Amino acid sequence: MDHDTDLPGHVERVLARFLHESGARILATEPGFASGVDSLTEFVLRGGKRLRPTFAWWAWRGAGGEDTDAEGVLQAVASLELVQACALIHDDLIDSSGSRRGRPTVHVAFADLHTSQQWSGLPSSYGLAMAVLIGDLALAWADDMFAAAPLPAATLAAARPVWRAMRTEVLAGQCLDIHTQATGDASPEAALRVSRLKTAAYTVERPLHLGAVLAGAPSAQVAALREFGRELGTAFQLRDDLLGVFGDPSVTGKPAGDDLREGKRTLLIALGLRQAGPAQAEVITAALGNPALSEKEVDQVRATLREAGAVSAVETRIDELTGTALSALRQAKLTEPATTALADLAARATQRTH
Amino acid sequence: MDHDTDLPGHVERVLARFLHESGARILATEPGFASGVDSLTEFVLRGGKRLRPTFAWWAWRGAGGEDTDAEGVLQAVASLELVQACALIHDDLIDSSGSRRGRPTVHVAFADLHTSQQWSGLPSSYGLAMAVLIGDLALAWADDMFAAAPLPAATLAAARPVWRAMRTEVLAGQCLDIHTQATGDASPEAALRVSRLKTAAYTVERPLHLGAVLAGAPSAQVAALREFGRELGTAFQLRDDLLGVFGDPSVTGKPAGDDLREGKRTLLIALGLRQAGPAQAEVITAALGNPALSEKEVDQVRATLREAGAVSAVETRIDELTGTALSALRQAKLTEPATTALADLAARATQRTH
Repeated sequence: MDHDTDLPGHVERVLARFLHESGARILATEPGFASGVDSLTEFVLRGGKRLRPTFAWWAWRGAGGEDTDAEGVLQAVASLELVQACALIHDDLIDSSGSRRGRPTVHVAFADLHTSQQWSGLPSSYGLAMAVLIGDLALAWADDMFAAAPLPAATLAAARPVWRAMRTEVLAGQCLDIHTQATGDASPEAALRVSRLKTAAYTVERPLHLGAVLAGAPSAQVAALREFGRELGTAFQLRDDLLGVFGDPSVTGKPAGDDLREGKRTLLIALGLRQAGPAQAEVITAALGNPALSEKEVDQVRATLREAGAVSAVETRIDELTGTALSALRQAKLTEPATTALADLAARATQRTH
Repeated sequence: MDHDTDLPGHVERVLARFLHESGARILATEPGFASGVDSLTEFVLRGGKRLRPTFAWWAWRGAGGEDTDAEGVLQAVASLELVQACALIHDDLIDSSGSRRGRPTVHVAFADLHTSQQWSGLPSSYGLAMAVLIGDLALAWADDMFAAAPLPAATLAAARPVWRAMRTEVLAGQCLDIHTQATGDASPEAALRVSRLKTAAYTVERPLHLGAVLAGAPSAQVAALREFGRELGTAFQLRDDLLGVFGDPSVTGKPAGDDLREGKRTLLIALGLRQAGPAQAEVITAALGNPALSEKEVDQVRATLREAGAVSAVETRIDELTGTALSALRQAKLTEPATTALADLAARATQRTH
C-alpha cells in the first residue's frame, strides 16, 4: 500500500489537515485564540518518531485491514499523536523542563513571550496557564480527530474501548510515576508498574491493540499482538532507563545522567539498590534527585551500577523480553510486510542509542 | 417524565455510576491510581448546580425528545459535568485558588497530603502534577461518557459537532481570559468576547444546542434556542460580574470584592473605566489586581462604579438581554413543561444573589 513507504509523512499529512481545519473553525469564532492554536500545531508538526501510529498501522495492515479503510485508519491512529502532545506538554510543565527537541517547552515559550512583552503578572504563571490549556486542547482534539475518522460506525465503535483504556492508562501511569518519586518507593516492582502503564501499555500494546481491532482481527490474533506489545514495551522502557544514565549526550540530546538528576525511579536503579552493598547503595541514593550532580559523580554512579550487576541484569532482561516478544509476533501470524516491519521496529526500539 | 422532578439527582446518579464503573476498571489494572480516581469522583459528586446538563435536558425535552432515549440523553448531558470538572480543577490551579465549595482545591489538597506525609520534593510541585493529571482524567472521561451514552448511533453522531465546538470554545475563552488579564486590555469589547465564549457559549448556548440536536429539532427551533442561550448567557455573566464586586460574602461564599483583587477584566470594570473621570478611573485601576485590597478600598471602588453609571448600565443591559432571551424562547415553541422550566432558569440566573 502507498502509505507503507512513508508512514510518518502520511501521519503528518492527516495531522496537518485536521489541525488546520479545527484551527480555522475556532479562529472564525475567536481570532484571539491564534497563539494557542499555532502553538499546538507547531508542537505536533515539529516532528517525532510517530511511534504509536506506526505500531497501530502495522497491526491493522498485518491483521488484514481493508484497503478502502486506509485513510480512515490513518486518521484514527494519527490522533494518538494528539494524546501524546497533551502528555508531553503537561509532563514538561510538571517536570519544569526547559526544552524539548531543541526548542523551549510550551510553558517556557509563553513565559518568555510574557517577559518580552512586559505584560502584567508573573511570566511563569502565564506560561503555566497556557501550557495547561494547550495540553487540554490537544486532548480534546485527540478525541475529536478519532471520533471524526471516516470509518464505518461499527469499526470505530469496536475500537473505542481500546481508545478509552489507553487514555486512562497513561494518566494512571503518570500519577503513579509522580507518586513513586514522591514516596521514594525504591522497589523494582514499583518501577515495573510505572513502565508497564506508561510505556508497555500506552506506547506499544494499546496502539497495536487499536490497529488490530480496527482491522476486525480475531481474538487469538489480538491476544498475540498484545503480548508482543507488552513484552516489547517493557524492553523499550528498560533501554530508555539505560540510555537515561549511560546515553551519549551527543546522540540522546539530553545531558549525561539526566535521569539521575531528576531522581527517576527506574528498574535499573531499583536493581542497583537491591544488589549493591551498603557503600555502593549510598553512592546511588546520594546521586538520585540531586540537580547539581557533576559529570564525575555521574561516572561514579555508572561504575557502581555496573559493579552491582544491575546493568548486565537489565541487558539480560531486555534480551529475554525481546525474545518472547518476537515469539508472540510469530504467533500473531500477520501478513507481510507487517511482520517484518514490526520485527524491525522491535529491533530498533530495543537496540537504539537514543 | 420521572426525571423532570429531580434532574440534579438523576444527573448525579448517572455520574456516580459512570465514575464507579470507570474507576473499577482502571483500579483492577492499577490499584495505585485510587487517590486520583477518588479525588475526581469526590470532586464531581460533591455538588454543584448541574446547570449545563439542566439546560441541555430541557432543550431536549421541549424539542420533543423520545421517552425511550431519556436515560441515554441523561448520560450524554451529564458528561458536561466532567468537562466542567476539568475546567474548574485546572482553573483553580491557574488562579492559585485555595478553596472551592468550602473544601481545599485539588492542587492544595494534594500539596497538603505531601506535607503531612513528609514525602520528598516540593509539596506544591506534587499538588500541581496531580491537579494537571486529574483534570486531564476528567476531560478524557467526559469524552468516554459522552461516546458511551446508550443512544442510537445517528443521534450521537448528530450531536458530536456541538460537543466538539463546545470543548474548543471553553478552552479558547479561558486562553483569551488569561491573555486579556496579562495584556491589561481594558476594553468592553475584550470583556464581552471572553464572556461570550466562557459563559454564553459554553454554559448556556451549547448545552441547549446539544439537547436540541439530540432531540432532532428542526433548524429554526435550534436557532431560536441558541439565540435564547446567547442572550441569557451574557446576562448571566453580567450578573456574575456584579456579584463579584457587590455580592454579599455570606451568600456568595467568596470574600467581598474578590474579582477586584484578582484583577478580573469584566464589562462592569470596562464600563467603569470608560465612563469615569480621570480621578475615578485611577481609583478603579489602582484596586484592580491588588491582592491586599482592604474592605474600605473595595467600598470606594463600589461607590466609584455606581457614580460613573457603570452599575446602572450593566443592570439595564441585563434587563435588555433577559427580554430578548425570553422572546427567543417563545419563538422556539418548545412543549411544556420545558418553556416554563427554562424561563424559571432564566429568571434565577439573572436575578440570583450567588
